[in-house]
Amino acid sequence: MTDPRIVRRRSRDFFWYSPILNEQLDGKSADLMVTPRDEADVVRVAAACARHRVPLTVRAGGTGNYGQAVPLAGGVLLDITELADIEWTKPGRVRVGVGAKMNAMDAQLQPSGWELRMHPSTKRTATIGGFVAGGSGGIGSVNYGGLRESGNILAARIVTMEEKPRIIELRGDAAQKINRAYGTTGIITALEMPLAPAWPWIDVVVVFDDFMAAAAFGYEAALADGIVKKLLTPITAPLPSYFGALKSACPDGKSILIAMIAEPSLEAFKTLLGGRGTITLEMPTDDGPGQVPLYEYTWNHTTLQVLKADRSVTYLQCLYPHDQLMEKIAQMREMFPDEVLQHLEFIRFNGRVTCSGLPVVRYTDPERLNEIIRLHEESGVYIANPHVFTVEDGSRYKRVDVDQLGFKHEVDPHGLLNPGKMRSFVAAG
Amino acid sequence: MTDPRIVRRRSRDFFWYSPILNEQLDGKSADLMVTPRDEADVVRVAAACARHRVPLTVRAGGTGNYGQAVPLAGGVLLDITELADIEWTKPGRVRVGVGAKMNAMDAQLQPSGWELRMHPSTKRTATIGGFVAGGSGGIGSVNYGGLRESGNILAARIVTMEEKPRIIELRGDAAQKINRAYGTTGIITALEMPLAPAWPWIDVVVVFDDFMAAAAFGYEAALADGIVKKLLTPITAPLPSYFGALKSACPDGKSILIAMIAEPSLEAFKTLLGGRGTITLEMPTDDGPGQVPLYEYTWNHTTLQVLKADRSVTYLQCLYPHDQLMEKIAQMREMFPDEVLQHLEFIRFNGRVTCSGLPVVRYTDPERLNEIIRLHEESGVYIANPHVFTVEDGSRYKRVDVDQLGFKHEVDPHGLLNPGKMRSFVAAG
Repeated sequence: MTDPRIVRRRSRDFFWYSPILNEQLDGKSADLMVTPRDEADVVRVAAACARHRVPLTVRAGGTGNYGQAVPLAGGVLLDITELADIEWTKPGRVRVGVGAKMNAMDAQLQPSGWELRMHPSTKRTATIGGFVAGGSGGIGSVNYGGLRESGNILAARIVTMEEKPRIIELRGDAAQKINRAYGTTGIITALEMPLAPAWPWIDVVVVFDDFMAAAAFGYEAALADGIVKKLLTPITAPLPSYFGALKSACPDGKSILIAMIAEPSLEAFKTLLGGRGTITLEMPTDDGPGQVPLYEYTWNHTTLQVLKADRSVTYLQCLYPHDQLMEKIAQMREMFPDEVLQHLEFIRFNGRVTCSGLPVVRYTDPERLNEIIRLHEESGVYIANPHVFTVEDGSRYKRVDVDQLGFKHEVDPHGLLNPGKMRSFVAAG
Repeated sequence: MTDPRIVRRRSRDFFWYSPILNEQLDGKSADLMVTPRDEADVVRVAAACARHRVPLTVRAGGTGNYGQAVPLAGGVLLDITELADIEWTKPGRVRVGVGAKMNAMDAQLQPSGWELRMHPSTKRTATIGGFVAGGSGGIGSVNYGGLRESGNILAARIVTMEEKPRIIELRGDAAQKINRAYGTTGIITALEMPLAPAWPWIDVVVVFDDFMAAAAFGYEAALADGIVKKLLTPITAPLPSYFGALKSACPDGKSILIAMIAEPSLEAFKTLLGGRGTITLEMPTDDGPGQVPLYEYTWNHTTLQVLKADRSVTYLQCLYPHDQLMEKIAQMREMFPDEVLQHLEFIRFNGRVTCSGLPVVRYTDPERLNEIIRLHEESGVYIANPHVFTVEDGSRYKRVDVDQLGFKHEVDPHGLLNPGKMRSFVAAG
C-alpha cells in the first residue's frame, strides 16, 4: 500500500490524548505499508529492510496512545493483522498469531470455559500482539497483575531484523524481552498466552455521594478474595457526567464505582456494599457486535469519554504505593482538587492490591504538567509518563527484569525496528 | 446407637494432637448417638432434646483437633453424615446436605469444571459441615483466604434448638453466624458454597538446602499472581524425614516446599524457581480411592505425619503479620531453633499474602507451651491456640464479625448445643 493518505492514517495512533505528543508526532508517517499474509512474508520483508537499511515499524489495531506504532523515520509500516489464526488451544493456554483481535479470541474461547486473563479497554479493536508489545495490563489485572508478572506471557515467536532473519522462540521469562518494547526487539509473529476461567461477568455501576467512599469500598472489594471480580474502577464526579450513553446510571454530582463481578459472587458483593452506595446498573457483560460494554468507560477509555466532549483535558498514569494507598489517594485529591480529577483502577502489582491512577488532568502547559508529575513523585506516587514516546521514559516502574537493550543488539543490530523508540540504543559500528 | 464402646469412639476427634486437651477431654462421651435420615428427623431430635433439656453435640467426620465435636456433658451425639445429597449445582455454586464428604463433592463437581474453593488436609474423610462449623481454611486459601472472608460461605440452613424448632436460612454475611462455632449456634442441615474453577493440579516437591530459602521462594510464588496455585507449604528439616511414603523425594537434612500448581502455570513456576531448589516430585494431584495426595503432608497433616513416629511433639497455629512476614519467620526460627520446627502455609488473609504457621513443637509441659505462645505474641505473631476447646479461646484473631453469642440466645436459649464450647454463653433464666 503506497497511497499516502492511507499510509499516513495508518501511521497514527491515539497519541493525541497528549497535547505534548500531539505536537511531536503529528504528521509522522511511514512511506509505505506491507501486509504480510504469513510468517514467510514477514521474513522476506525483514530481509529486504535489513539489506537496504530501511526502518520498519510494526502496526496492528493502532489503539495505543504513546505513539508506540508511529514511525519516526519513515520506512515500512508492517501491518500484521492478517496473522490472526489461533494455532491451538489447551486447557489454560492458547497459541495465536500476533494479529488476532482480542475480542475475537475471547468470543472463540469463552464457549469452552476460558478467556484471556486481561485485556485493555480497547479490546474490541486491539490485537493480542499490540497489547503485549505496547500495553501493560487492564481489565483482569485486579486478579493477575500486569503482563510483566511471571506467567502472564508464556512464549513469543519472533523474526529478527537481519539480512538473513532468524526465527526465535522465547519461552518463559525470556518472552518478557518483547513485552512493552514497542516492537523494537524483534518482529513478533505468534504468542502463547495463559488463559483464565471464563466466569459469567456482570457489569455493575455503584453510585456514591463521595469519591473517597467509592475508593474505600473499591479497596475492600479488591481485598475480598472470596468475591470474584475482573474490574474495580472508582471515578470521581464530575467525570461520569461526560459518559453519554451511561448518563442514566450516573446522577449529577455523584462519584461512581464501575465493577465487573462474577455472577455467583454478586450477592456477596452487595452484602459487602451494604447501604454505602446505590447500584444503578446491573447487567451481564456483553462485548458482542454492536454492544458497548461497561469496560469502555474504564482504563484509557475513561479519558477518551471526556475527550469526546472536552479536548482541553489530558491525563496521567500513576502507581500508588500499596502500603499507603488510601492516604496517598486522599493526599493527591487534596493537592489538586479541580485540576487532577481522580480515576483509579484497582490492580495487583507484585502480589499486592494497589491502584493504578489514570486521572483526567485539566491541561494548561507542559511546564505545569511536569510540575504535577514532580509533585506526585515527591509524594511517593510513581508516574508512568504518557506524554513521552520512548520505551525508557514512559514506564520506568514497570520495566521488566530482562535486558531488552542487550537483546535488541542481537536481533536488530542495525537499529531498524521502530527507530527512536528505544532511546538508549546505539547501533554498533 | 447406644453401644457405649461405639458411642465413646464416635465422641472423640483428633484432640490428642494436644497433650493438654488429651488430659482434659479423654473419656468424655455422649450417652447415645442418633443418625437422622433427613431434616425432619433433625427437627424431631432437636424438639425432644429441647423439651427434656438434653445436650446435643453435632458430629460428622470427627477430623477436627480441638475437641470441637467432643460432648462435654453427655447427651445426644447427632451424626449428620447421612444428610449428604447435593441439592443442586449452578456455575460457581453448590447447595448440599451438611454431611456431604468434601472428597465426594469434588469428585462429582470436577468433571463439570468446578471444585470446592478450599478444603482441609483431611478432605478424604471430612464433611463440608464439619469444615464450616469447625474449620477455618486450608488448601486453596492461598487464593480465596479463609471461610471467614465475604463470599466464601453463601448460605446455611439451620434448625433451632427449641421445643418447637424453627428452620432458618442464613444468607450472605449472616451465614458467618455458624462459621467455626462448633455447632453451638444451630444445627446446620444444608450449605450453599461457592466453587472455584477446577484446574488440572500438579503436586510438586521442591528441595532446598536452607529453610529460609524455601520460605522466600514460597513467598515469591505466593505473590506471583500470574502463576495459578492452590498450595504453598515450606517445611523445615528434619520434619520431612518423618514423611514415610514421601521419603524418596525428601533427602536427609533438607527443607522442602510442597506445592500444588495449575498445569498451565508449571513452566512459569519452574522459571521463577530457577536454580534455587531441586524438584524431586512432580505428578498430577490424585485424591481418588486408595491414593495419598501430597496435601496429606500439609496443614494439620504435617503434624500428624510426625506424631505417627513421635508422640512427644505437639504444634501451634500462628498468624504472621503480612507486612513483616520474612523478618518474623526468621525471628521465630532463631528464637526456638530446635524446639519450634517451622512449617508454614501461605494464605491470603484480608486480601494480603501472609503465612499461617503450624510449627511442630517439642513438648515439655503446659507452662513452657504457654511461654512459647506468649513469646510469639509479644513478637507480633498471633496465636490461635489449638490447646483449648472453647470457641472464644481458640481463635481470637479469626473471629468473624457477627454476633455469634447473641445469635445463640435466639436459636439455643437453653444452651443445649455442644455445651461448654461457647464459654461466654450463660442461659437466660
